Amino acid sequence: MLNIALIGCGRIGVMHSQVVQTNARARIVAVHDINPKAVAEVIGDSDIKAAASAEDIFADPNVDAVIVASLTATHADYIEAAVAAGKPILCEKPIDLDINRVLACQKMIAGSDVPVQIGFNRRFDPGHTALRDALVAGEIGRLVQLFVTSRDPFPPGIDYLTNAGGMIRDMTIHDFDLARFMLGDDEPVEVWATAAPLIDDAMAEINEVDCAMIVMRTAAGRQVFLNNARQAEYGYDQRVEAMGTSGMLQNSNRTPHGLMRYKAGATAVQTGYLEFFIERYREAFVIQLDAFVDLANGKPADVPSFDDGLKALALAEAAYRSVKSGRAETV
Amino acid sequence: MLNIALIGCGRIGVMHSQVVQTNARARIVAVHDINPKAVAEVIGDSDIKAAASAEDIFADPNVDAVIVASLTATHADYIEAAVAAGKPILCEKPIDLDINRVLACQKMIAGSDVPVQIGFNRRFDPGHTALRDALVAGEIGRLVQLFVTSRDPFPPGIDYLTNAGGMIRDMTIHDFDLARFMLGDDEPVEVWATAAPLIDDAMAEINEVDCAMIVMRTAAGRQVFLNNARQAEYGYDQRVEAMGTSGMLQNSNRTPHGLMRYKAGATAVQTGYLEFFIERYREAFVIQLDAFVDLANGKPADVPSFDDGLKALALAEAAYRSVKSGRAETV
Amino acid sequence: MLNIALIGCGRIGVMHSQVVQTNARARIVAVHDINPKAVAEVIGDSDIKAAASAEDIFADPNVDAVIVASLTATHADYIEAAVAAGKPILCEKPIDLDINRVLACQKMIAGSDVPVQIGFNRRFDPGHTALRDALVAGEIGRLVQLFVTSRDPFPPGIDYLTNAGGMIRDMTIHDFDLARFMLGDDEPVEVWATAAPLIDDAMAEINEVDCAMIVMRTAAGRQVFLNNARQAEYGYDQRVEAMGTSGMLQNSNRTPHGLMRYKAGATAVQTGYLEFFIERYREAFVIQLDAFVDLANGKPADVPSFDDGLKALALAEAAYRSVKSGRAETV
Amino acid sequence: MLNIALIGCGRIGVMHSQVVQTNARARIVAVHDINPKAVAEVIGDSDIKAAASAEDIFADPNVDAVIVASLTATHADYIEAAVAAGKPILCEKPIDLDINRVLACQKMIAGSDVPVQIGFNRRFDPGHTALRDALVAGEIGRLVQLFVTSRDPFPPGIDYLTNAGGMIRDMTIHDFDLARFMLGDDEPVEVWATAAPLIDDAMAEINEVDCAMIVMRTAAGRQVFLNNARQAEYGYDQRVEAMGTSGMLQNSNRTPHGLMRYKAGATAVQTGYLEFFIERYREAFVIQLDAFVDLANGKPADVPSFDDGLKALALAEAAYRSVKSGRAETV
Repeated sequence: MLNIALIGCGRIGVMHSQVVQTNARARIVAVHDINPKAVAEVIGDSDIKAAASAEDIFADPNVDAVIVASLTATHADYIEAAVAAGKPILCEKPIDLDINRVLACQKMIAGSDVPVQIGFNRRFDPGHTALRDALVAGEIGRLVQLFVTSRDPFPPGIDYLTNAGGMIRDMTIHDFDLARFMLGDDEPVEVWATAAPLIDDAMAEINEVDCAMIVMRTAAGRQVFLNNARQAEYGYDQRVEAMGTSGMLQNSNRTPHGLMRYKAGATAVQTGYLEFFIERYREAFVIQLDAFVDLANGKPADVPSFDDGLKALALAEAAYRSVKSGRAETV
Repeated sequence: MLNIALIGCGRIGVMHSQVVQTNARARIVAVHDINPKAVAEVIGDSDIKAAASAEDIFADPNVDAVIVASLTATHADYIEAAVAAGKPILCEKPIDLDINRVLACQKMIAGSDVPVQIGFNRRFDPGHTALRDALVAGEIGRLVQLFVTSRDPFPPGIDYLTNAGGMIRDMTIHDFDLARFMLGDDEPVEVWATAAPLIDDAMAEINEVDCAMIVMRTAAGRQVFLNNARQAEYGYDQRVEAMGTSGMLQNSNRTPHGLMRYKAGATAVQTGYLEFFIERYREAFVIQLDAFVDLANGKPADVPSFDDGLKALALAEAAYRSVKSGRAETV
Repeated sequence: MLNIALIGCGRIGVMHSQVVQTNARARIVAVHDINPKAVAEVIGDSDIKAAASAEDIFADPNVDAVIVASLTATHADYIEAAVAAGKPILCEKPIDLDINRVLACQKMIAGSDVPVQIGFNRRFDPGHTALRDALVAGEIGRLVQLFVTSRDPFPPGIDYLTNAGGMIRDMTIHDFDLARFMLGDDEPVEVWATAAPLIDDAMAEINEVDCAMIVMRTAAGRQVFLNNARQAEYGYDQRVEAMGTSGMLQNSNRTPHGLMRYKAGATAVQTGYLEFFIERYREAFVIQLDAFVDLANGKPADVPSFDDGLKALALAEAAYRSVKSGRAETV
Repeated sequence: MLNIALIGCGRIGVMHSQVVQTNARARIVAVHDINPKAVAEVIGDSDIKAAASAEDIFADPNVDAVIVASLTATHADYIEAAVAAGKPILCEKPIDLDINRVLACQKMIAGSDVPVQIGFNRRFDPGHTALRDALVAGEIGRLVQLFVTSRDPFPPGIDYLTNAGGMIRDMTIHDFDLARFMLGDDEPVEVWATAAPLIDDAMAEINEVDCAMIVMRTAAGRQVFLNNARQAEYGYDQRVEAMGTSGMLQNSNRTPHGLMRYKAGATAVQTGYLEFFIERYREAFVIQLDAFVDLANGKPADVPSFDDGLKALALAEAAYRSVKSGRAETV
């Protein structure tokens, strides 16, 4: 039984704690959050320990591994602390909004073999995984073009947005990683991007965008397209399309159930998609945790690493440079 | 060039005349209808001849073949006349509402080799044909269950209904034939049926029904299900499903185009189906006519024969007996 | 926390025990099965108690409620024992293969207010529930025709089949109940059925069938169609279609993920459906258990009752009479 | 009856002549092609006149209007000749591969009111039209992002390609126009493009590409994405997606019929799409011709003009500049 401590008891932290409950090989033994109310909610009437500080958690010999779902600004510190304490860590993305902090962290943990997993949960989605498996199996010949559509159902609050580092660092980062997951060893080397506040006027006021189109070229010359919108009234839209020399693959959206309505002028009406990432990627979070348990137990596990976190951020940086320059920017 | 005469210039007659125009091997040379206005409409400013009577048409040496789209009560007479005149005939279904009249007609034309084709147009629908081809090719192993869904978008007028011979003779007749087309040599031998006026109260007043469920058993023991409704607010619904020992086939509905709408709570919304049989079976009518041209030209043509018309009517008769008796009735 | 005892540790029992684990308001405290190995598997290294007998479970004051997933022949006995012991019971379907035993059991428990829930899990499937909600909300006007398609991916073993009471009592029973769930207060009053061994020759040898078509008429005259196959090579097929005076509803199948493949001659290819009832109705089992916890806690819960179990069996009996008589049989 | 002359009797010319046959208000009266065999094929046993030269056609008082489907290099000359002769012209795209030639032609015909229609047939596709109508009706609020997917089933021959002016001028030109059609008055002002030979090695040898991704920004700041492939083994892929502030629209592909196959591991299999533009855009060609007949008859007709042809080419030029520069280029 893997004893896990959870740092950060916000919405995603709560979700992680629920996911751990469904895993027969792990349990939450300690939690920490600066908000005692959030802590109390996760603990409920269980015997989970409320740690006074993150330091206590890293020092606790009863804690085998750590899940970090706290504010982004704390991620790099906790990764360094976990590595120093020899505790495997599953850390939410991004590692930091400042790539220099990430590079410093990389130096700090260099040489260590303490497992670090970044929370790119989409890699564990059964549909995305099946698409990648089909690519690897050569089902569509050579991949030539890749398309990732990623639209949130509604934007986060203005408070969140002013500290989130910009849509491309905060939201597109998942798509950069998902594209890299699909591309295998063939890394993007060039990024061109355009981004603007087209949906919500409030975005322009805080110098934020809500629509983006990004094109990348890989080392082997493949073409990759990412598109984002912070707000899609019809629901959380998560699609991947892979065009190959002998076929095409699409992973499309999921509905809560299979009911379809037929009325005059509106046939085959679906009710809508699974609401947001908590619902859409529920299975992915469960499988991600299981992979982390393997990783923490020293078993082979194909998980997104610290370097994957760094590389996704580097693509976001290149995209921001391109938005300014109007040029394709080298990564 | 096959010189065709058209008897009956109502809605279906007009459609036939338009279909002939698209066929490079045939043309309409003469028309007849008791309604001179209908005749004038089909002729327009063309040099098609307005025949004074059906007799004139059968006597006209310039007429190679005849299409009959007049009232049902005239069909058997015209078939006999066409056979007597040696003119190939494509006659709309049903041959007659009275099976005794059909049997008499069968006797009258027995021994003749003048081609008679009954207008079971659905046999020529590309989707239905592809389904049958897949059955014949053994794609789903042995067929064990067959399902035909057939719902009209709206009922005919009360005037029509009072002379149409009842829903099962008028509307289901197409489904009996389509089922026989799919079953190949394995004929239905037993029919059980229930029918009632469930949608429109006006039906009960004229002793008519608007909903039916019919189950047939074939000589080989296969199970066949037909279901009808005279009125489907969401549109003309025409589906076939074939269940086999190693797979399943479905021919589903057609939309006028591929546009889908996505809104909050209503995603993947299609606009609706092709309106009614004229639109839904447009291609089928075109292919049916081409097969008739082959038939009239003495070429091999796989078309529904007089006997097919008789057998579909015999199934309708058995269904009506079953509605009364509550028993499965032998055909 | 509701303390549940589980009787029967076969495949479905194991599933129930896993489902209980995901419910924060319930836990398994005791299990019994005649097979000690099965018991050991469910207990694992937990502190669940292995009861020496079913009697021990009903006598155990620590047991608040009972889930029965043992052989059908034991169901009625356990229902009587649970009612006598005052313990709420969730019992798998069917109550018994012999309707006289069910009627005797009904008499025995008459007047008691101990909650009895029959395991018609499909009533809790989100898609089926949404369809029923749409019916109740009048979205399609008046319901006139109902269609239930239910095909298993592969047949049970011959051993199981020889004791299962026949396909209609064992498998169709779910569809009778699902139809009743959709129909609300309007009960089926007449049943016509045909059934035969069309897929697997081994069925004929044990006097069993593997294909059925059943038509029911309700008190209000509605038409209901059920169709079954014991073996569908393309997967577990569970569909409901409801035809109304102003629209239509379909609840269609679920896939494990949204991946679609596009190749020459085979576009939009789905991988297949969720494998069988354990996978397809996973959510339904979870919601069913939660409803049972409500029921056991004295809260209002809309669950299938003992009478629902009896009525579904009565429909199966009528269907078997009809298969023999060729007539529509009154329920 | 509009008397039309056809110049160019290749594959597309033949298609145009067939389309004219289905139009009750027009007929082909004369044809010209440098290849007498092609001419003979179009004429068949009809009384269509074989014109000795294009000049003869423009001088023929019996010719009311002209359709041009000859080599691209002749288009501008024929447009000038038609305008000079006062004959309305429907000319296939592109006007010329050299934008200077197009500009010269524009000057030459300036001030004339002889109708010139460019053959951007996709504007008349019922699905594309319905999508645009929905945009204009404000169904998805304000349009913010537009996506056009356009993939040919197989590349043209090397001979054709070496004279076609490059994929972006030859193939993408349709997508530039389709995007402009959807955007209404809001013109693209900036283009970024990447293109490479990724599928077929033969492309690289002739300095041609077969995959492209193009992003445009409009005057109002909207984002537009075009993607092309010269070869899609799964078939001719033509999709449009429009993302708006309150919904989304997709026009998806068309299949020849509705048959779907279900087998183990491959459910809901469609047979494939309508083969290529002749089949996929059959209806569009028919409606395009009807609009041209209106135009030639002096009736109001919303058709792509000479300027539309010029503007699409200008976008292609900007795209080629961007491929070289790596920068977003102003149109």
